[in-house]
Amino acid sequence: MSAVLALDIGGTKLAAALVSADGVVQRSARAPTPADPWPVCHHLLEQVRDGAEIAGVGVGSGGPMEWPAGLISPLNIPGWRDFPLRDRLVESYPGVPVRVHNDAACVAAGEHWRGAGQGVDNVLGMVVSTGVGGGLVLGGRLIDGATGNAGHIGHVVVQPDGPDCVCGGQGCLEAIARGPAVVAWARERGSSAADGRELAALARDGDQVALAALERAGAAVGVGVASAAALLDVRLAVIGGGLASSGEPFWRPLQTSFARHARLGFLTGVTVVPAALGGEAGLVGAAALVLAGDRYWSVG
Amino acid sequence: MSAVLALDIGGTKLAAALVSADGVVQRSARAPTPADPWPVCHHLLEQVRDGAEIAGVGVGSGGPMEWPAGLISPLNIPGWRDFPLRDRLVESYPGVPVRVHNDAACVAAGEHWRGAGQGVDNVLGMVVSTGVGGGLVLGGRLIDGATGNAGHIGHVVVQPDGPDCVCGGQGCLEAIARGPAVVAWARERGSSAADGRELAALARDGDQVALAALERAGAAVGVGVASAAALLDVRLAVIGGGLASSGEPFWRPLQTSFARHARLGFLTGVTVVPAALGGEAGLVGAAALVLAGDRYWSVG
Repeated sequence: MSAVLALDIGGTKLAAALVSADGVVQRSARAPTPADPWPVCHHLLEQVRDGAEIAGVGVGSGGPMEWPAGLISPLNIPGWRDFPLRDRLVESYPGVPVRVHNDAACVAAGEHWRGAGQGVDNVLGMVVSTGVGGGLVLGGRLIDGATGNAGHIGHVVVQPDGPDCVCGGQGCLEAIARGPAVVAWARERGSSAADGRELAALARDGDQVALAALERAGAAVGVGVASAAALLDVRLAVIGGGLASSGEPFWRPLQTSFARHARLGFLTGVTVVPAALGGEAGLVGAAALVLAGDRYWSVG
Repeated sequence: MSAVLALDIGGTKLAAALVSADGVVQRSARAPTPADPWPVCHHLLEQVRDGAEIAGVGVGSGGPMEWPAGLISPLNIPGWRDFPLRDRLVESYPGVPVRVHNDAACVAAGEHWRGAGQGVDNVLGMVVSTGVGGGLVLGGRLIDGATGNAGHIGHVVVQPDGPDCVCGGQGCLEAIARGPAVVAWARERGSSAADGRELAALARDGDQVALAALERAGAAVGVGVASAAALLDVRLAVIGGGLASSGEPFWRPLQTSFARHARLGFLTGVTVVPAALGGEAGLVGAAALVLAGDRYWSVG
């Protein structure tokens, strides 16, 4: 099979890649997300394609979206509301499959196909970054849910009387553990950290507020993963995204909290590990929608 | 197809049924669970079989168990530890499929096949009773998980600093909403209720402590269902079991809490309803393991 084009659409960044049939990124390109992203998407795709024959196009995008129709309305791209991304791509790349899914589902697929979840049939994939998202691989297949939205672990409630969430709910994991919320919590307590990267650096230097902020976030993620593991009977949770790169100050409380709450016998041996593919997981997973469609694409 | 034998193994009660190919209970029989349940199980099965030709045997049992091998160790049947139930049934009923799954998975399968979840592809099935259990039907199929234990919604954490749970964890839904815990909470506050049925009767008469106990339980279930709905993208949650028969004092706070927490766009229109099959859901679902194995039995 030929290589495929992969596209990863985020609120701040667009990325495209040519991914070989065995799941290796051959060429990639990135650009900030402009107000009207379509011309840039198309340009990036053509740039990485560089005239190559392709077997299809896979896309991971921030939601919400109409799935599998591929009408996308990414929360952080106000200019796109019910934008017919799939139709546009079909026009540009006729005759090959074009498949659009949620970005976090693509991360889960990518980590399962070529990352930390290889060979494990039941995996929770997560991203802890500007938002907290996830995707589910159960019985070796990507789970879509009724509307393509399965895996929204960011909106598992970890503290029912906790902070309000952007979704309108209360105490969601995302409301506590998303990068901007963690930084805001630290700044309210006097921290100078401007973003998650600075917060992690401060924590590594022993700053107490930064450590407490990352501990609070890690513990909340541990609760959410424990809940998901009980509900899904997965063997592995794989966590990527910026905040998950914060090292021990984030991971130690996460593991402690997970161990405290995941106590059922069948959860013995479940592991929670960092993502292996880093920033490429979403692109590799988007490619997998086409290249390993038997496992990651359930619809026609 | 001929009818099948169904067996439902609980800590206090055993039930057997002959279930027709279209999922209707033809004959059923029940008995209290003795210390050594096998002779009684066999007797009940033969009683309802009454000489009929059968196409297989389906069993729902309390866990834990080795699945799909059918070695069962029900928490509330101390005499059975790694009891080879499937092997025993194969000896008694040679030449037909014998399939053993978790009781709550069978309830979910039963409600999806012939109950409140008919025609809905993505359903969470739950039992709120002596314990809190569940099963998942996603994409029209029963989800097993890595060890056959998918669906353990009773151990979704709804209050991280909440009461200790029998599983060893803390703040699990089961620790708050299982019948005995709800009754104990009320009795600590002066209630005379001896069991969930009495508590529900007191609540219907306006007793404030009974109302508060059921409100606390219902609200916790609402949080757990909201978390599960976000994670699974189901369209429907179906709840059976004794405590779920407590009427408005349980269901109103449940719905209020669910509505408070299930706020993502794709959760609009998700409904939470009482089980339709009542006490027969587990038997019908056990039968479905054989009669509709394409949807409810994934292994050979």
